[in-house]
Amino acid sequence: MNTKSVKAYGTESPEADLKQLHIDRRTVLPKDVEIDILYCGVCHSDLHFARNDWGMTEYPVVPGHEIVGRVTQVGGEVSKYKVGDLVAVGCLVDSCRTCSNCEADLEQYCTGGWVGTYGGYDKHLDTNTHGGYSETIVVDEEFVLRVPENLDKAGIAPVLCAGITTWSPLRYRNVGKDSKVAVVGLGGLGHMAIKLASALGAHVTLFSRSTNKIDDAKQLGANEVIISTDESAMEAAAGRFDVILDTVPYAHDFNPYIATLNTNGTLVVLGYLGPLEPPVVTVPMIMGRKSVAGSLIGGIAETQELLDFCGKHNIVSDIEVINMQDINNAYERMLKSDVKYRFVIDMKSLKG
Amino acid sequence: MNTKSVKAYGTESPEADLKQLHIDRRTVLPKDVEIDILYCGVCHSDLHFARNDWGMTEYPVVPGHEIVGRVTQVGGEVSKYKVGDLVAVGCLVDSCRTCSNCEADLEQYCTGGWVGTYGGYDKHLDTNTHGGYSETIVVDEEFVLRVPENLDKAGIAPVLCAGITTWSPLRYRNVGKDSKVAVVGLGGLGHMAIKLASALGAHVTLFSRSTNKIDDAKQLGANEVIISTDESAMEAAAGRFDVILDTVPYAHDFNPYIATLNTNGTLVVLGYLGPLEPPVVTVPMIMGRKSVAGSLIGGIAETQELLDFCGKHNIVSDIEVINMQDINNAYERMLKSDVKYRFVIDMKSLKG
Ligand SMILES: [Zn+2]
Ligand SMILES: [Zn+2]
Ligand SMILES: [Zn+2]
Ligand SMILES: [Zn+2]
Repeated sequence: MNTKSVKAYGTESPEADLKQLHIDRRTVLPKDVEIDILYCGVCHSDLHFARNDWGMTEYPVVPGHEIVGRVTQVGGEVSKYKVGDLVAVGCLVDSCRTCSNCEADLEQYCTGGWVGTYGGYDKHLDTNTHGGYSETIVVDEEFVLRVPENLDKAGIAPVLCAGITTWSPLRYRNVGKDSKVAVVGLGGLGHMAIKLASALGAHVTLFSRSTNKIDDAKQLGANEVIISTDESAMEAAAGRFDVILDTVPYAHDFNPYIATLNTNGTLVVLGYLGPLEPPVVTVPMIMGRKSVAGSLIGGIAETQELLDFCGKHNIVSDIEVINMQDINNAYERMLKSDVKYRFVIDMKSLKG
Repeated sequence: MNTKSVKAYGTESPEADLKQLHIDRRTVLPKDVEIDILYCGVCHSDLHFARNDWGMTEYPVVPGHEIVGRVTQVGGEVSKYKVGDLVAVGCLVDSCRTCSNCEADLEQYCTGGWVGTYGGYDKHLDTNTHGGYSETIVVDEEFVLRVPENLDKAGIAPVLCAGITTWSPLRYRNVGKDSKVAVVGLGGLGHMAIKLASALGAHVTLFSRSTNKIDDAKQLGANEVIISTDESAMEAAAGRFDVILDTVPYAHDFNPYIATLNTNGTLVVLGYLGPLEPPVVTVPMIMGRKSVAGSLIGGIAETQELLDFCGKHNIVSDIEVINMQDINNAYERMLKSDVKYRFVIDMKSLKG
């Protein structure tokens, strides 16, 4: 297979900083779209994967799965996109396409194994896939998304992961005008959860441990903020919410939040991967038919739906634009939650 | 208020055996139905409540919430029932009737507080309510159910608690012809779960720790039995079930069962009240949009639906009929799971 060498940013070991390197992109196959990357959002997964926090990383790694760019070339059988189109790529670049989940537009739950935008298996090159911290990317058109031209091209990037991760459970749980939604945690996911639930017409509450996030949350669209360390405020919130999106990425007690679910309510775990400690107590779940559920990003059709929704409601992420060369510092700041609310890399800085 | 003294079986302390005593039943109010109790099923809750295992019992206690009988008297405003009708009373004898859950036929989740058939607050007599281990009971017609005459009058009693507890989550989760349902535990709840899921057209699997339940499970309608201690059998079951009804009443590891849920599948906790230990791990829940949920008995309309369904499909519980005087021995045998699958008291033995 013919390839093209392009500049990228990545790392060859868990301990090393990210640095400039070169990767191969395939030349376009009949169904492929080649994209000149304009912006790429910085996700917590990028950092965890680069540092092998999940013990599954193969090196070199080029992270990045919140990609926005312009089409520069299309294969002979591409029908959806043409050169110059504003497009995006999210967390997936392929899936088995034949399992019942793929057939139901749930590629993120593909039982044949979906292909991640980085760290997945690239069947064409027989290597790992490489993500958006690079000049260009080549992706099958079925996994390319269209970006409404009215949107800020940098701000829309985080919608591809942080946005869809919160959108999918809101839509799956039928959140709309009469819904009462709460969000736990105000980071990249949390701030998108507030914007999207609010735009869907829901009443939106942020749970926060500190009072200093009240103004920010309200500006993002939250109707109220409940201080989770205030026991009487938590008691007053008993039985109120239809859906809680929990975006906190570390172990914490779910029980106080479950108490604030309404009958039939669901707490959706989005941020934390691990054992539920302290343990969840079943009594309130049984007494109120409540659930604790998981949710993973979203499918391709659903992500397109979200981009169109963002276009219509002019929703983008609140971001801080950085140069590619700032990425190691950005990772350190991200670990301290020192960003409102997402870093986005301006790819001119890599190309320049 | 005028009352009538009737014979009952109950206890005045957690340590004492149940024995014969007398309780007061109110004379019928305009909306009341007086019922001559023919049969009463024996539920695990009866035992736990009599022994104050949940720390909330006030004495004396007269258990029993799986009640079948004939109407002997009706109040002047009763429109649904007449003398001689075959009727039933389950776990609830009243609720607030005004909250949104009551209005949605979800009296079991009444936020104003539903009134249990025993151990609840009887607003008419300003005492605790007393259950079905007695000659008669007087209940508002809105909480009385109609029993199809074609059914075995003893066998239908456990449907009022064990049956509805499994029916409600099956219906709420839309179990039908193409559903794959698994049941954990083959006791009072589990055997009803198999019968009902099977009658709804689902493919039904029993998880069991031992091979000696295979024949029984299949006779009840299960399509297969998976031995949960057989690791390779459990691995082969990965991703298969839409709904798992977990009826086991003690702490156990949910994670091996969650692994057998399909995408969007739900494990419904019916039997165990307490902390989920060992802790549930979120990763498979997130990767497959799976849920762990609770469910509590069922509403009045839903219980009537179930009784009608049982009438149509000629479904009753598999039972062992006992005399009232055998109850203390029955409790001991129930603790050892030495019953297939539910004790039902023939109330002639109390009256005789
Ligand atoms: Zn991400
Ligand atoms: Zn697939
Ligand atoms: Zn019961
Ligand atoms: Zn109510």
